[in-house]
Amino acid sequence: MLSQRLQVLQETLQKLLRRGAKTHVERLLGRSRPADIAVVMRFLDDRQRRQIFDLLPDDEARAETLTELDGHLVGEVVADRPIEELAPVVASMSADDQADVLSELDDGLRQQLIDALMPAEAEEIEELLEYDPETAGGIMSPDYFALPEHTTAREAIEALQATEDVEMAFYIYAVDEPGHLVGVVSLRALVTHPPNTPLSEMMESDVISATVDTDQEEVARLAARYNLLAVPVVDHGGTLAGIVTIDDVIDVIREEATEDILKMAGADETAYEGHSLWKNFRVRAPWLFATWLGGLAASVLIGAFESQLEATVALAAFIPIVLGMGGNVGAQTATIIVRGLATGRVSGGVGLTYMVRETGVGVLLGSLYGVLLAGYAVFRYADAPGGVGGLALTVGLSILASMTCSATVGAMTPLVFDRLHVDPAVATGPIVTTTVDVLGILVYFGTASLFIGNLG
Amino acid sequence: MLSQRLQVLQETLQKLLRRGAKTHVERLLGRSRPADIAVVMRFLDDRQRRQIFDLLPDDEARAETLTELDGHLVGEVVADRPIEELAPVVASMSADDQADVLSELDDGLRQQLIDALMPAEAEEIEELLEYDPETAGGIMSPDYFALPEHTTAREAIEALQATEDVEMAFYIYAVDEPGHLVGVVSLRALVTHPPNTPLSEMMESDVISATVDTDQEEVARLAARYNLLAVPVVDHGGTLAGIVTIDDVIDVIREEATEDILKMAGADETAYEGHSLWKNFRVRAPWLFATWLGGLAASVLIGAFESQLEATVALAAFIPIVLGMGGNVGAQTATIIVRGLATGRVSGGVGLTYMVRETGVGVLLGSLYGVLLAGYAVFRYADAPGGVGGLALTVGLSILASMTCSATVGAMTPLVFDRLHVDPAVATGPIVTTTVDVLGILVYFGTASLFIGNLG
Repeated sequence: MLSQRLQVLQETLQKLLRRGAKTHVERLLGRSRPADIAVVMRFLDDRQRRQIFDLLPDDEARAETLTELDGHLVGEVVADRPIEELAPVVASMSADDQADVLSELDDGLRQQLIDALMPAEAEEIEELLEYDPETAGGIMSPDYFALPEHTTAREAIEALQATEDVEMAFYIYAVDEPGHLVGVVSLRALVTHPPNTPLSEMMESDVISATVDTDQEEVARLAARYNLLAVPVVDHGGTLAGIVTIDDVIDVIREEATEDILKMAGADETAYEGHSLWKNFRVRAPWLFATWLGGLAASVLIGAFESQLEATVALAAFIPIVLGMGGNVGAQTATIIVRGLATGRVSGGVGLTYMVRETGVGVLLGSLYGVLLAGYAVFRYADAPGGVGGLALTVGLSILASMTCSATVGAMTPLVFDRLHVDPAVATGPIVTTTVDVLGILVYFGTASLFIGNLG
Repeated sequence: MLSQRLQVLQETLQKLLRRGAKTHVERLLGRSRPADIAVVMRFLDDRQRRQIFDLLPDDEARAETLTELDGHLVGEVVADRPIEELAPVVASMSADDQADVLSELDDGLRQQLIDALMPAEAEEIEELLEYDPETAGGIMSPDYFALPEHTTAREAIEALQATEDVEMAFYIYAVDEPGHLVGVVSLRALVTHPPNTPLSEMMESDVISATVDTDQEEVARLAARYNLLAVPVVDHGGTLAGIVTIDDVIDVIREEATEDILKMAGADETAYEGHSLWKNFRVRAPWLFATWLGGLAASVLIGAFESQLEATVALAAFIPIVLGMGGNVGAQTATIIVRGLATGRVSGGVGLTYMVRETGVGVLLGSLYGVLLAGYAVFRYADAPGGVGGLALTVGLSILASMTCSATVGAMTPLVFDRLHVDPAVATGPIVTTTVDVLGILVYFGTASLFIGNLG
């Protein structure tokens, strides 16, 4: 939901652009925050986005706007612009933002822009670009504040005052001669110790850190659990390589939550990229194939029970509700367990307890809705073959059995996938749907043959 | 997923507690971080949690552990302990943590603990407890750093050095005589301006702030969008009342993501609270009632088409797959739109574009799976009444129509709810399920009567 303020900004910009009132647009952009401009640009068309980029007040505003813009729009906005125009924009970004923006461009343009940077900067970027973008290495910034462990408190304070980026210097990292991370000192410790105390005497040496290939989700979890403003990242030799700051941690947490939600529904972030029909179709079709297979299996099984259906055609009327209730309670349970595994609320150790409880909830829910449906069956099919009691018992018990089984399957599947180190968010949905369809039909016609079949 | 390290901690603690090796437990707890202890406590039983709380090294460790503990466990751990034991623990927490912890206790104990605090502190807590816990007022901390706007840079630096909580003083807030928030100064601006510059001359006066009743999700969005380390909170008169710091913002983002995911499946956070079967049942039953109603509607409709089914019993076999494919593509689409609305990727303005695209994706997916299913029907029901062509056409076109309608309904429903200011995460699921069931049956038997019915 766009806030009122941003909606006004968007509408005003669109109106002014349509009128060609460039000076007004320039003035409005000069007064607006790049983060807001980037959000509004999502809702404009390609041509308008490029016009806005042209009319931004200076290269710094262009740099900030590009940094905040959705990844897939970056390439579109900078396409076909001369290197001389883009180089100063990229040069005014911080190293980790440079790496993020450059990774959205095609290889040729990226290399041209890297070549246009200062040699030292270019090297830094090339190193950052080598890491997987979803790891600590891929999101870290090389602008950290590290000092040798024998530095005194006074020297550290002086160094801090001389540095440009004081706002991001939340912690001082102590390193030994070869550059290994050996401790962390808070700003508070720095000012409360006598000026001659070396860092080594006031530092916390049990440092919470990530390695360059730690998954970004794990880095975010460290920052959240220990309330850190920055997580230091070391390479495989233990040398300090960068830090992941809290603002990037927030982006990771938001992205990962979205990714998990979409994965459970068989979609991904491309759902929001432009309006490409074909790409969306390709991402979503495979996941639906599992549903299709489950439906086909149900169809084959129903075909096998054709003679029973012919005898009691009323049975067909309850197939959707038996499968639907099972499917929904299974999906509910699976969602609870998958999210619990992602947030650490559910873990292997308590997995069994949750499975037992979910089965219990399935029994309760199944009893409630089974009784309700049996009641309806009595009322509607008083003249069913085998007597109304048979049909009512069949549908009631089927709902109970199908909801109980589904709750168990919904809880068990993600726990098993987690144990096998398969992402439960991806695999659970299709497996649960298919299993529940097959189990539901078997249970339904099995119960029917017990209570109606013999009499039909 | 609990990390290896925490799993070891949990198992060791359990082993030592079972053996009654108190000294070893004490030593292990002394070496562990309170945040880790709090996570591990989730997976222990009630008695073990209380033992651990007893064996923590000091009141500060007890305070930190309580602060990090899941809300519903707090009451359990402190129950039946004497006030003299709890008061010093609560006293050593920061004001916002005190309010959080106290809000988990029953009224009697809460009041006793508040009475045991210093009068000034007690008043602060009582004020905080009055705000809705899901608003800026409910999560803010009253420990901010504000100075009159005429304070000079030198005086501000001196004040900053004299304060105890330097780590959380990310920004200096400038206030006027009556205490209204009039500007914000970064630490960087403070050190780069001449010592005699007053705050009013270096401050950013266009301050991004929240009011005490701003929804916590909106506060988190502000912090994330503008990369703020703290969001100032003002009361309705514009007077600075507190700040929401970045660590609380992270907690909000994680909680809200979990809440959204669970809401879409008709569950809520109680899913993780203890193992209460009954509470879980009550939360989940109403949402499933919508599914039940949808299933019942499908059942009534199928009953109405009984004569058609009697003529062509093979029709029954394809009911689950027609409804299942529709239901799944509808849920997929709804998930994409609901999450897009929550993250701001989808907004009223582009809603129509998304709806058109989703319908298009539905047509593509429906064509693919319709052709596949028609192929199966030809192969399996070569001897169907009305000829195999009729049944194949019926199932193929039904899948196409059902998936297309479902995609449209799945996209439209959350957009409409958003427009009506109803939370799309709660309302969408049941509506889509029910609509899709009813539409699916109508489409299926409608198509069947066109291609088979007349011949059957």
